[in-house]
Amino acid sequence: MKIELYEGERIDDLQRNGYRIIQSRDGFCFGMDAVLLSGFVRVRERERVLDLGTGTGIIPILLEAKTPGEHFTGLEIQKRSADMARRSVELNGLSDRISIVEGDIKEAVSIFGRASFDVVTSNPPYMTGNHGLVNPELPKAIARHEILCTLEDVVSQAAHLLRENGRFYMVHRPFRLTEIMTVMVKYHLEPKRMKLVYPYIDKEPNMVLIEGLKGGRSRITVEKPLIVYKEPGVYTDEIYEVYGY
Amino acid sequence: MKIELYEGERIDDLQRNGYRIIQSRDGFCFGMDAVLLSGFVRVRERERVLDLGTGTGIIPILLEAKTPGEHFTGLEIQKRSADMARRSVELNGLSDRISIVEGDIKEAVSIFGRASFDVVTSNPPYMTGNHGLVNPELPKAIARHEILCTLEDVVSQAAHLLRENGRFYMVHRPFRLTEIMTVMVKYHLEPKRMKLVYPYIDKEPNMVLIEGLKGGRSRITVEKPLIVYKEPGVYTDEIYEVYGY
Repeated sequence: MKIELYEGERIDDLQRNGYRIIQSRDGFCFGMDAVLLSGFVRVRERERVLDLGTGTGIIPILLEAKTPGEHFTGLEIQKRSADMARRSVELNGLSDRISIVEGDIKEAVSIFGRASFDVVTSNPPYMTGNHGLVNPELPKAIARHEILCTLEDVVSQAAHLLRENGRFYMVHRPFRLTEIMTVMVKYHLEPKRMKLVYPYIDKEPNMVLIEGLKGGRSRITVEKPLIVYKEPGVYTDEIYEVYGY
Repeated sequence: MKIELYEGERIDDLQRNGYRIIQSRDGFCFGMDAVLLSGFVRVRERERVLDLGTGTGIIPILLEAKTPGEHFTGLEIQKRSADMARRSVELNGLSDRISIVEGDIKEAVSIFGRASFDVVTSNPPYMTGNHGLVNPELPKAIARHEILCTLEDVVSQAAHLLRENGRFYMVHRPFRLTEIMTVMVKYHLEPKRMKLVYPYIDKEPNMVLIEGLKGGRSRITVEKPLIVYKEPGVYTDEIYEVYGY
């Protein structure tokens, strides 16, 4: 299939089903966070999935490849990212399985309606506020800092978008774990599974993967640690598995 | 010093300052939880420390050995445990540094007064309720199950016992992490440090160590993992260090 590429864009191989993704060299490219989230999320047959703040569509594309879910939607507020995501979906021949919608996370419930998904995922901005940002309107800043939406926006919208017993999955930074848990509890997305990602076995974790169950009871399984590197430059087997090499 | 031992009691070496502890063969003996907590707690010079539910006094005795704190108090509701703790304090010649008080955690604020400690520690019962317990009055059941006090009792009393900016330290089970965090936030003991204890590098964690700061702002440091065993029967170096071998 012939897909138009614009100035500064490139196509990367996802090492999965032959899928590829369009990214911008000067914009925000997907990171290990999104890949690890796609390995943590559980999607069953006939389930409908929404990704809040999908960027270039990496999460719906990986979940389509990895899970038996029925349909995947990505919501993205930045026009240019949404456009790249849409072209990547076409490039991979997935237009009947993945929809990309341009819109604001804070309006997701009005866009899609309550209880309209079985699974909601998100790799939201990690950093609070936009203190000291020189260019808070830049795509990278919007993807990394809570400029257009906060953690509470993401969690509250997810809670309303999910059917009862639906599941929410998020990747975030460990330093915000207390807020993550208290906000999830506030919106009745009970944390049920958590995995900490440690770059090395003797370092602090730099990511947390969390699953919430809408209407669940309080009891969480903290899973075995995910260690990224065996030694500098050499991934552990678990990372190779998630990446699908 | 001559200390009376009763039927079924034994004296164990703590591998630290030559200190020893009296325990009961058929009662609840201290575990790795208490030792790891003593390695996680930070006590500075001139600080006053209270341990809620001190059992046989293991935590105040280890903290007296490991930290420069000024005074340590252990509160214990079970008469027999409190009596063993008191005799262990005498056995080690620590009566001027450690006090053992017999009393109920739920009444700790009335016993000691508000804002009377710089540090509060606890290794509380981990299991909710007393469902299915044949003998809920047994010492072991009381130490393990929330029969005489709940997580919220421990946290709320700790919050009131601490001065502003005082620190709370607890060891607990990871499956209750969400409750731990939400209850700590409720009583303004903001979680600031957390460490998960994994028995092996490829297993789920079975303990969580947490530090709360009275009146602190939301931001937590999740520390590097504590792995207990290198291989079956062989501790990692970090465990040997905490035990003081």
